[in-house]
Amino acid sequence: MDKSQQDALKKAAGIEAAKLVTDGMIAGLGTGSTVRFLVDELGRRVQEEGLNFIGVTTSRRTQEQAESYGIKIVDVDDVDHIDVTIDGADEVDKDFNGIKGGGAALLWEKIVATNSNKIVWIVDESKVVDTIGKFPLPVEVIPFGAGHVIKHFEDRGYQPVLRLDKDGKPVRTDENNYVVDLHMERIEHPQDLAEDLINTVGVVEHGLFLNMVDTVIVGDPHGPRVMTNSNK
Amino acid sequence: MDKSQQDALKKAAGIEAAKLVTDGMIAGLGTGSTVRFLVDELGRRVQEEGLNFIGVTTSRRTQEQAESYGIKIVDVDDVDHIDVTIDGADEVDKDFNGIKGGGAALLWEKIVATNSNKIVWIVDESKVVDTIGKFPLPVEVIPFGAGHVIKHFEDRGYQPVLRLDKDGKPVRTDENNYVVDLHMERIEHPQDLAEDLINTVGVVEHGLFLNMVDTVIVGDPHGPRVMTNSNK
Repeated sequence: MDKSQQDALKKAAGIEAAKLVTDGMIAGLGTGSTVRFLVDELGRRVQEEGLNFIGVTTSRRTQEQAESYGIKIVDVDDVDHIDVTIDGADEVDKDFNGIKGGGAALLWEKIVATNSNKIVWIVDESKVVDTIGKFPLPVEVIPFGAGHVIKHFEDRGYQPVLRLDKDGKPVRTDENNYVVDLHMERIEHPQDLAEDLINTVGVVEHGLFLNMVDTVIVGDPHGPRVMTNSNK
Repeated sequence: MDKSQQDALKKAAGIEAAKLVTDGMIAGLGTGSTVRFLVDELGRRVQEEGLNFIGVTTSRRTQEQAESYGIKIVDVDDVDHIDVTIDGADEVDKDFNGIKGGGAALLWEKIVATNSNKIVWIVDESKVVDTIGKFPLPVEVIPFGAGHVIKHFEDRGYQPVLRLDKDGKPVRTDENNYVVDLHMERIEHPQDLAEDLINTVGVVEHGLFLNMVDTVIVGDPHGPRVMTNSNK
């Protein structure tokens, strides 16, 4: 599938997901290429149909895009709940375990998701996998002592790689932390891995989102397909 | 006991602990009023006795004090191990469970401690307690969404208070995060609490140091007293 076909599927999934946002709602808006199409569609509805909702964003770039359409964005701490959060994902399996954070915004994404009544992911077909882990798992790490955390990951066989920018400097998150990507290929026991990561001193958060999502909308050449999580 | 008597006990404990640092060692140097006496003594030995060691510090202020004596300080990532780390503590019980972070440096303190072969705490008698928790437990929290984390702590009965500076603004750690102090009075099940805190999205680290310390040197009017942890 070439990029324009993939974009068409992402766009279709984004437009489908936008239907879940209705007047008066507080909606969490994620980050990434598929979410861009969602925000475009929400912006269109705000401008053409008078849709009236409040958004909470998980990154500065989504906030800028949304505000360019006149969508009202507030801070996550200015709302007592979020009705629905729509976000992308880098991988998701049949048990609704996913990997997020390819765009280095995993911490804010997880904080917004944690405060949401309903979580929806929009993905293209290539993101739905049997076993997660082929997509490198991002882990947000405090710079102080990061070398020891990376060494610890190496000792565990997690294949860590410090994420660098095009100038060869460590990528910094919105909190000024590093991102270490774990090239594990197959994550057979995601719950055990999550526990090990979160208990590692120096780890702020990781990109495993385990059984958190309610609905996955998959861009499919035959039209958007919906996977519903009945075990959450 | 007045402050000058308490300072005398802290100083005695600091001088006793300084004996653990010998030529060629890599020593972790903590933060706090008792550690100031330790660093004064180490500085004296460097200048008067030619003591030769490398230090790793857990805060910028300890680094400045140490360097003022000509002690060589390196980054934690520039050493592959730390022989001994000497630090203060805000409370410690008979099972060697402690609370640290009153000085808002808990994250760096925990990172240095995790990479140390031996951990020594120097405290005055008032810090040794039957049950930890009277000292408010510091938790380092990401500012984004911090209001929801505080609400979550309230729901759990943890009595959270956002730490403010003298101008009424949130205190910021070296990583620019908030500190939330939990006024629990008694922490009966520290292991369960630690697990709940570290699994709360938005929490970076907490001040519970459970069974991590090897030796506690207690300033006592009859001379420094040593508690040795045989269960680590």
